[in-house]
Amino acid sequence: MSEPTETKPTQEQKPVAPVAPAADGQEELNPDGTPLSDNQKKKRAKQAEKERLKAEKAAKVQQQEAQRQADEVDFASQNYGELPLNQSQERHGRTYASLEDVKAENDGKDIFFSARIQTSRTPSAKFVFLTLRHAFFCVQAVLAQAPEKVSKQMVKWAATLPSESIVQVQGTISKVSKPIESSTVTNKDAEIKVSKIFLVSKVAPSAPQPFYVDDATRSEAEIEASQSTDRPMPGIPMDLRLDNRILDLRTTTNQAIFRVQHGISKLFREYLEQREFVEIHTPKLQGAATESGASVFKVSYFKGNAFLAQSPQLHKQMAIAADFGKVYEIGPVFRAEDSNTPRHMTEFMGLDLEMAFDEHYHEVLELLGDLFLFIFRELPKRYSKEIATVRKQFPSDDFLVPDKLVRLEFPEAVKMLREAGQELGDYDDLSTEQERVLGKIVREKYQSDFFMLDKFPMAVRPFYTMPDPKDENYSNSYDFFMRGQEIMSGAQRVHDADLLVKQMAKVGISEESMQHYVEGFRMGCPPHAGGGIGLERVLMFFLGITNIRRTSMFPRDPKRLAP
Amino acid sequence: MSEPTETKPTQEQKPVAPVAPAADGQEELNPDGTPLSDNQKKKRAKQAEKERLKAEKAAKVQQQEAQRQADEVDFASQNYGELPLNQSQERHGRTYASLEDVKAENDGKDIFFSARIQTSRTPSAKFVFLTLRHAFFCVQAVLAQAPEKVSKQMVKWAATLPSESIVQVQGTISKVSKPIESSTVTNKDAEIKVSKIFLVSKVAPSAPQPFYVDDATRSEAEIEASQSTDRPMPGIPMDLRLDNRILDLRTTTNQAIFRVQHGISKLFREYLEQREFVEIHTPKLQGAATESGASVFKVSYFKGNAFLAQSPQLHKQMAIAADFGKVYEIGPVFRAEDSNTPRHMTEFMGLDLEMAFDEHYHEVLELLGDLFLFIFRELPKRYSKEIATVRKQFPSDDFLVPDKLVRLEFPEAVKMLREAGQELGDYDDLSTEQERVLGKIVREKYQSDFFMLDKFPMAVRPFYTMPDPKDENYSNSYDFFMRGQEIMSGAQRVHDADLLVKQMAKVGISEESMQHYVEGFRMGCPPHAGGGIGLERVLMFFLGITNIRRTSMFPRDPKRLAP
Repeated sequence: MSEPTETKPTQEQKPVAPVAPAADGQEELNPDGTPLSDNQKKKRAKQAEKERLKAEKAAKVQQQEAQRQADEVDFASQNYGELPLNQSQERHGRTYASLEDVKAENDGKDIFFSARIQTSRTPSAKFVFLTLRHAFFCVQAVLAQAPEKVSKQMVKWAATLPSESIVQVQGTISKVSKPIESSTVTNKDAEIKVSKIFLVSKVAPSAPQPFYVDDATRSEAEIEASQSTDRPMPGIPMDLRLDNRILDLRTTTNQAIFRVQHGISKLFREYLEQREFVEIHTPKLQGAATESGASVFKVSYFKGNAFLAQSPQLHKQMAIAADFGKVYEIGPVFRAEDSNTPRHMTEFMGLDLEMAFDEHYHEVLELLGDLFLFIFRELPKRYSKEIATVRKQFPSDDFLVPDKLVRLEFPEAVKMLREAGQELGDYDDLSTEQERVLGKIVREKYQSDFFMLDKFPMAVRPFYTMPDPKDENYSNSYDFFMRGQEIMSGAQRVHDADLLVKQMAKVGISEESMQHYVEGFRMGCPPHAGGGIGLERVLMFFLGITNIRRTSMFPRDPKRLAP
Repeated sequence: MSEPTETKPTQEQKPVAPVAPAADGQEELNPDGTPLSDNQKKKRAKQAEKERLKAEKAAKVQQQEAQRQADEVDFASQNYGELPLNQSQERHGRTYASLEDVKAENDGKDIFFSARIQTSRTPSAKFVFLTLRHAFFCVQAVLAQAPEKVSKQMVKWAATLPSESIVQVQGTISKVSKPIESSTVTNKDAEIKVSKIFLVSKVAPSAPQPFYVDDATRSEAEIEASQSTDRPMPGIPMDLRLDNRILDLRTTTNQAIFRVQHGISKLFREYLEQREFVEIHTPKLQGAATESGASVFKVSYFKGNAFLAQSPQLHKQMAIAADFGKVYEIGPVFRAEDSNTPRHMTEFMGLDLEMAFDEHYHEVLELLGDLFLFIFRELPKRYSKEIATVRKQFPSDDFLVPDKLVRLEFPEAVKMLREAGQELGDYDDLSTEQERVLGKIVREKYQSDFFMLDKFPMAVRPFYTMPDPKDENYSNSYDFFMRGQEIMSGAQRVHDADLLVKQMAKVGISEESMQHYVEGFRMGCPPHAGGGIGLERVLMFFLGITNIRRTSMFPRDPKRLAP
């Protein structure tokens, strides 16, 4: 298992010249029996002294060599090395711990785990300092020479492991006297004293190394502050990150972001399933470019063409006409819009729902509002560690959740905006800037980062929107906002075929082009309303992240189809 | 609210000819004072009698007319009629009941609900028999004339409502003395006595009526048996159903099928989330046609092309290389295969998972097997009513779930098949027929409709499959089967870049064409395994349904892109 140790041939000791031993107390004689002359005696004494010194030196060399040999046998060879390619040969059933366990209260406990090497530092031949990362935890670890346990060779080997290598580690959790300073280490009050370390997966010498995960984890503020020091830190540009997304996704921040993303869809489902919604899957391949031809991708479909669904709108309504009552879908939506902004992608995840109601579309509006309150209240409870991890790199204020739903009607919002100096007509749609301003006004007035804007002008909504019964300039439709940005659009839909055809005609859509959709209503359909939520947008605004690409695992935009 | 009642003008009573009144006891005289002749007296008496009869008749007509008028005022006008188009004007907050409540134990209780009219029958002017359907329940209801409650007009109006109209009904649950015979009524021991009925959504006269939902709900056996009777029932061909899928989906059977579909994905998630899997969403738009160019759809992407992902294989592995550890995805997969069979669709739902393991890919294989046992055991517990509803139309045996996972190795399966008379080479893939035969052998031997076939020959598996460490003719890969048909394919994947590139080269795939994927492994990747499950196939084989189109809400195949 260990690297081959270097063994040199043992140095041969030169033989000492033969001298007849002098018996204690007896005088030394010449071979002919005559006593030695004074000169002879001096010479002999000199030679003896020389040989003694020589022997002494030789003995010392021999002793050193023995020590060196002993060292090179490497008493620690079983404690480190490269594991063979795992092709599933053995099962020991060992339990792997989470790095979350590395904390002061576990001081002295053994731990066994696998992790990536995030950074490696070797201040002397006797130590290696590593930071080890797994999921969204990053801990400090020390491998130090120790008699009978950690050999010089072991330290030397560990020091050669490149960052991003995956290692299997045996060690002891050890409380530290003062908090670990590194901004990228997440567990501050304990470290690991490593006793065994094996390489599970190595980083190839030919692997790209566009940046270090450690650097990719730093906040803007930290990078900024470092520029005036002697160790300025590099900022990692967005495109470099996305071009090397696998590496980028390994940061503790990204590990946390996508767990919060999962949290949102999980809470969305949890809330709806408690209310007996049925999950549906509607086709992404469509026979016609329906809702709005301009922003639809065309697909070669055998000898003809198909189009990618730009939302499940038509089919989720068909599911209502088909009596499913309350439906939801989580699926990709495709938009062929050539928008290169921090808010647009060509493919994103839609959280869609549609619901037949009994009396009033506010039954649906209120359910949707309550659904969001549920998500906003549960996320900080269930994902507190993940949110805290994200905030280290992307500091943001807590998302203000109101006690009671805030619902504004459109004319009210227009009035508030005009009072704030914005100019807009009664039936104009809001600009992105006006949405932001409105978000700020609502935040101050209601202490809420979330509100619902109801009763949009009919003119700015799609043909399938139900007009307001009292004033046909308005409609039974709504948008929801987080931090002043739209995250959901919804409405009561027209469920009467004649009215629908009339509204389609106004925008130049023929009944024939949407035959099945219209037929669904001719065959009877309950009144219904719903909404479409952008998953990445909810995630982005909840965490206060400014580019939507950070909230999509492998984002797609007009210029990016890889990785 | 009620239909305008017909009012005719009151019949005028003709004036009687003037006769001088005879004072009591005084003889009647001629105008000249002479007494009346006998002849005159007789004539007068005759005329008087005639007028008396005439007046009597007139009074009777008058009385009848008054009665008729009283009838036409319609004492029940508040109890029925067409509701205005629901544009959300009022909120009463009434609670709508489920048709599930219509059962003998609720005898005498009031019920208020909305439902579709499935069938309507009017044996006399005094009754309408309706079957009313909501979700996967269908009940019998009677509207019968009753003094002061249900008028003749009300019965007449209700009788005109076409099937598939949506009505709001107030009534009383009433136990029936013997089970309701109709095969399409689901609640057999009680019916509803209707006291109020309003039309919520009408079926347009121009609506297509390709078939009745009632007929679309019958089993093959019932249709077959009816052919020799005087009321043969129509079978509804698959294409007619799919062309009118909204109508077809309304059958209690389809309402149940898609609730069981939801159950499968819900249980899939529930199991994986308990084990800390992270839900991911990988892009369906790909820059290159990677896994196998032949079966990939091409998309026009701005000035270039994109391709639709034929599975999340590459990206879910990238998520493992990016340290997400255990991931799952539920999303559409696209196959541009021109296969027109009952088992193929061009778009279907993939339940995918991928997992870094510690020591052996059997950790993943066993988790997957256990996941299926969980699904198979929970479905009949949580969806017993839905499964029973489906079986009325599609009778099938209970799906046999083993106590202990059945895992065969490939050479063992080859041996069993040869013993059963099948011919195949050691390293040949199994034919569909051989899979069925193997399914039967396993069912008999292990009393199980589910088994795992492990250690497939390397030659029949994709390039990213890890070879068996002891015999490179085999691989660490597996398929799972239900009722002798494949529902999942999986394997340990090659996580070493050099081995991967070698295996890619063997099948003629260049490293450049899959640069990001290979780089993920060069940058270090834990050993991992996973699998891809076809949702519709699991649903189909669990319920014993023979055409996969029945298990997809809006199926897509080479010839079908609508509705």
